[in-house]
Amino acid sequence: MLRGVAAVALSLLVVACQPPVSEADAAPPAIQQAAAPEYLNPSARLPFSEGVRHGGVLYLAGKLGTGGERGIQPETRRALESIQDALERFGSSIDRVLKCTVFLADMAEWSAMNQVYTEFFPENKPARTAVGASGLSGNGRVEIECMAAA
Amino acid sequence: MLRGVAAVALSLLVVACQPPVSEADAAPPAIQQAAAPEYLNPSARLPFSEGVRHGGVLYLAGKLGTGGERGIQPETRRALESIQDALERFGSSIDRVLKCTVFLADMAEWSAMNQVYTEFFPENKPARTAVGASGLSGNGRVEIECMAAA
Amino acid sequence: MLRGVAAVALSLLVVACQPPVSEADAAPPAIQQAAAPEYLNPSARLPFSEGVRHGGVLYLAGKLGTGGERGIQPETRRALESIQDALERFGSSIDRVLKCTVFLADMAEWSAMNQVYTEFFPENKPARTAVGASGLSGNGRVEIECMAAA
Repeated sequence: MLRGVAAVALSLLVVACQPPVSEADAAPPAIQQAAAPEYLNPSARLPFSEGVRHGGVLYLAGKLGTGGERGIQPETRRALESIQDALERFGSSIDRVLKCTVFLADMAEWSAMNQVYTEFFPENKPARTAVGASGLSGNGRVEIECMAAA
Repeated sequence: MLRGVAAVALSLLVVACQPPVSEADAAPPAIQQAAAPEYLNPSARLPFSEGVRHGGVLYLAGKLGTGGERGIQPETRRALESIQDALERFGSSIDRVLKCTVFLADMAEWSAMNQVYTEFFPENKPARTAVGASGLSGNGRVEIECMAAA
Repeated sequence: MLRGVAAVALSLLVVACQPPVSEADAAPPAIQQAAAPEYLNPSARLPFSEGVRHGGVLYLAGKLGTGGERGIQPETRRALESIQDALERFGSSIDRVLKCTVFLADMAEWSAMNQVYTEFFPENKPARTAVGASGLSGNGRVEIECMAAA
């Protein structure tokens, strides 16, 4: 009978000592952080992926807006529409952007760029840096890169 | 009495098998990473937030030092004082900065900028890139952006 | 003898109720995120660390390729070899790079730079921005900065 008690106690031990299953157990962070980054829409033609996702952050390649009417405002709008589209395709959204860097062909166009830029970020305004670049790809007026919460 | 032993053993089981309460249980990482970013001190007047916090990282907007005496050294000092102030208001500090990007109006002022810059980072030196920009906001001599451990 | 049973049961409790040691227990994420960043190879001579590691991301300082033959292609190769070397010394690798920023002394050298750049990223292409800088340290033709999965 003592053996019976001991056996019951041992069975209870086996059941009761299972730690509760939690997100922390299901997906331990160290393994998550060691996971390979996800390369999203890599281009055969271009030397970069459109986005890379890792550790809760989505890194987007810099976006131009040169594929249509030229000028700081149409190019800013097209670049940000392209960013918005990429964010959604990659599981984020424009209201989850963390940081943008805006490279301008001419800093004198800072205010004109901002008039369009602010339409896209009415609420959750990312941290931002905007500086003049001595040259942009495709002779663009503006290039914008973003990091977003994945 | 055997029941007494079993009861004591069971009581011990209940107490002893509680997994230790840890940060991992209190804040599982998967939920944390899905959380909305925190937009810190968004400006009504400017098109960005002063900082954004997400996933253990604080992203600061680029900082100028144009609000006083002009010149590379006073502007570098004022920009870094402004960064130091923002880091502390947002729960970080100057000794937890991960990466800085320094944009200079004139790369010839690199050494003069560094003389002031190094005063702010005597120990924990962030990774850094310093390049010339073809223009900076407010006609500044220097703009500095940082990411820091939150 | 009952005491003997109880003693055995208690010994089993002590052994059996240890939660399984996992990465999650060894390094809970919230504590990890609150941990101090790791400053890697800080320079006594230069105002930055070669890399900083925090929260699963490795931030590298911008790299030049000026220590040898000059020109966009040899300098791009040397900068990327230096990045590859640093990534490996700091526990990452070239196929785990998340994002690069390429600063060019002259955007007209974009294609020539890319010819070399793409050799280093045949598979896992990082997100990237490439812009012209009005000046680079050491009169370099190119400076490249990267973030990588740690």
